[in-house]
Amino acid sequence: MAHQSVVTPQEEDFPRWYQDVLTKAEMAENGPVRGTMVIRPYGYALWERMQREIDDRIKACGAQNVYFPLFIPESYLQREAQHVEGFSPELAVVTHAGGEELAEPIVVRPTSETVFGEYMAKWIQSYRDLPLLLNQWANVVRWELRPRLFLRTSEFLWQEGHTAHVDQADASAFAMRIHLEVYNDFLMNVLAFPTYLGIKTRRERFAGAVNTMTCEGMMRDGKALQMATSHELGQNFAKAFEIKYLGDDSQEHYCHTTSWGASTRLVGGLIMGHGDDNGLIVPPRLAATPVVILCVKEDAAVDAAANALAAELSSQGIHCEIDRRNGSLGRRITDWELKGVPVRVELGPRDLEQGMVTIVRRDSGDKAPTPLAQASAEIVLVLERIHTALFERALAHRDAKTHDVTTREEAREAGQTGFARVAWDVIGDEGEQELNAAQLSVRCLQRADGTIPDSQDEADLLCIVAKAY
Amino acid sequence: MAHQSVVTPQEEDFPRWYQDVLTKAEMAENGPVRGTMVIRPYGYALWERMQREIDDRIKACGAQNVYFPLFIPESYLQREAQHVEGFSPELAVVTHAGGEELAEPIVVRPTSETVFGEYMAKWIQSYRDLPLLLNQWANVVRWELRPRLFLRTSEFLWQEGHTAHVDQADASAFAMRIHLEVYNDFLMNVLAFPTYLGIKTRRERFAGAVNTMTCEGMMRDGKALQMATSHELGQNFAKAFEIKYLGDDSQEHYCHTTSWGASTRLVGGLIMGHGDDNGLIVPPRLAATPVVILCVKEDAAVDAAANALAAELSSQGIHCEIDRRNGSLGRRITDWELKGVPVRVELGPRDLEQGMVTIVRRDSGDKAPTPLAQASAEIVLVLERIHTALFERALAHRDAKTHDVTTREEAREAGQTGFARVAWDVIGDEGEQELNAAQLSVRCLQRADGTIPDSQDEADLLCIVAKAY
Repeated sequence: MAHQSVVTPQEEDFPRWYQDVLTKAEMAENGPVRGTMVIRPYGYALWERMQREIDDRIKACGAQNVYFPLFIPESYLQREAQHVEGFSPELAVVTHAGGEELAEPIVVRPTSETVFGEYMAKWIQSYRDLPLLLNQWANVVRWELRPRLFLRTSEFLWQEGHTAHVDQADASAFAMRIHLEVYNDFLMNVLAFPTYLGIKTRRERFAGAVNTMTCEGMMRDGKALQMATSHELGQNFAKAFEIKYLGDDSQEHYCHTTSWGASTRLVGGLIMGHGDDNGLIVPPRLAATPVVILCVKEDAAVDAAANALAAELSSQGIHCEIDRRNGSLGRRITDWELKGVPVRVELGPRDLEQGMVTIVRRDSGDKAPTPLAQASAEIVLVLERIHTALFERALAHRDAKTHDVTTREEAREAGQTGFARVAWDVIGDEGEQELNAAQLSVRCLQRADGTIPDSQDEADLLCIVAKAY
Repeated sequence: MAHQSVVTPQEEDFPRWYQDVLTKAEMAENGPVRGTMVIRPYGYALWERMQREIDDRIKACGAQNVYFPLFIPESYLQREAQHVEGFSPELAVVTHAGGEELAEPIVVRPTSETVFGEYMAKWIQSYRDLPLLLNQWANVVRWELRPRLFLRTSEFLWQEGHTAHVDQADASAFAMRIHLEVYNDFLMNVLAFPTYLGIKTRRERFAGAVNTMTCEGMMRDGKALQMATSHELGQNFAKAFEIKYLGDDSQEHYCHTTSWGASTRLVGGLIMGHGDDNGLIVPPRLAATPVVILCVKEDAAVDAAANALAAELSSQGIHCEIDRRNGSLGRRITDWELKGVPVRVELGPRDLEQGMVTIVRRDSGDKAPTPLAQASAEIVLVLERIHTALFERALAHRDAKTHDVTTREEAREAGQTGFARVAWDVIGDEGEQELNAAQLSVRCLQRADGTIPDSQDEADLLCIVAKAY
């Protein structure tokens, strides 16, 4: 059944499509203070699912959750030179509290490296206390002049991991483990989304890091979105905050630290990475409600069949919603498509007389009349098929819009509508500056086989050039 | 085995006992900015378990999670007269952001009634949109001059529910449902803790509420702690924010709203409500790790038996930790007692030769030699017994220290070391002022049968008088 689109087509105006989806799928809206965001129930349920999946993986890597304060003394930020330079322009500052002017202004955390550093220094005495693996779920504030819901907001929600290790090798291995076993595993196996893994150039690195790893995803409009990052901080913060340990050699050593984070920006990535002209498409393993049963008409038999099917699915761990609303069937279908529920089961009195239901896939629109007795088993299979299909669709899109080129000019050209992949030697620091001037950036550096290099000084690296959110 | 206490005895100095437990059980410490708190892994894991249990109950009542911004325009607070008066002295104010002075100062949310009000007004059109049942997990800031970890901190973590209803009856019933099915159910069935349920007097009510319900717990020192509160806001916020709906009578009506919250203060309640001179006592249903298996000596047979028992417990959904550390057995026992792990299983080579282990209860200290083959089944039973025993111990303590009295003077007297229960008519507004001047307060009003009154104007109410945290 063809029906009119209720969102602006992506090809016509992608930013407007994005805004339409946010509004009509009731994901989020602007908060009252510039750059802030109100996340509505449907959007927040997606974030809660992301949190649960990421948190489980973080814990499996051995990190423990903690909570550090929102407020940080301004002086803390100033101890690491690159860090304060990187964050100063974005800080929100509390000058008054409890009815009085404060003696020292307080900043609202833009990230928590400094305060973790201060306490890690107290908690770590000897090599036996290492590695110290901590994580927190929190809100952070970085003042945004050009805010965009989920992508760039003055306040956002995230997890930030902070760890300390005996040496560079251990720190580096742990940052890599988080990058692959938490972020990339989540992206591939829950979000059904392929990214380019690599490291950032010196220019694009986190303020204070010696190495930043990233997962760069391609959105439906060909632009890049950084989905998660893991940083090796070397001894920069250890020296600034005196994070030291007594080694088994009875000598004092500075620790090597890491930090790593993923944020509500992932919700923006979900929308722009999978969505289509009918709205959101939620990957089945992420969906809080992967199945909706749509009762075509008010009817006692339909009602009973819907309840029975929901109970069967529930017993297999699949939560579903039953839509018994009155009102236009077309409108109701449009609603569920907007919200991107992976599988819709249409249940009407006539089909039911013949013992049939219709299983509709959100990703492809395919409709499969199915015997009611086999519906729940079939739905389990269809959900897995959708996961795979979404991953493959995103991969094909990314590959089709990634162009291997050999000159700076070609890279600039290809980066207008997709990604350019080009030898890093061709670009270099100077070429990177030229690209930046043309609103493009080097998203990451990779080895020729697509793996993550140890440093940007390795020979024969490739780089991914694109416009980015 | 008697061993030396590592915390100050409660009788000697209760505040110091509390501080000792926080430090030695590695629960939390002071943050760098006055009044803020760093919650360490062991303390945060307890909060995470509380969150999960409370969140499940909130969702079962039909509320959905959302996220509203940290920053609120100062003007929002001013729209509800009592609300701004109540919170003004405690506000933290952001005056600079993004390197510039802001045109309008922004407050860091002390609670979110006002901003929920603003958006509910947009989202609610007709009676079909009601009730609107929302909740959020967030940090809030109320500047504290006399901070105390978990009990009064300038920043704390909590959930705040905000709902809108067609009429007073529906709002009132929902606030009561949350109070009983979320808070009291959690307190009794997870925290193993009895409280007095009642309503606050006009003087003690939430700023802007028409009725506040509370759960008042008695700590081990006889002082009161407010564990959770639910507020009926009448039409105060609906009128201030124009939260209106078109009724089925085609007329516009103002909604009735509620709000309700529980915070990290519950962790303080857990410590002070159940703890003893050996440290924390964690109720089994709350514990992330209800069982620790303590290997008395390094030994291959002990090791294998510990693994097998852990696997058996795990298959019954009971997570346990195996302590294979070297070092003093006494020190290790003291550690686990400090952390309040409900059941300790001691596994030594000599016992094991006879096929025995020792099950030790944290609450009573009872040690039961048990055949290894029956250990896991026995532990399941013991955990339930500990839950019941903790509840009963807290109840007996509360009842023993609650004195029924008949005069203001007796109430003042009894309130020095416990709770006084006295006719509200005896106290009244004037008596309440006198009590406040003597550092006592009316914690709640109850009916004679212990149930929650509809209003403070009901006849024959009793009140609970105490010192409070």
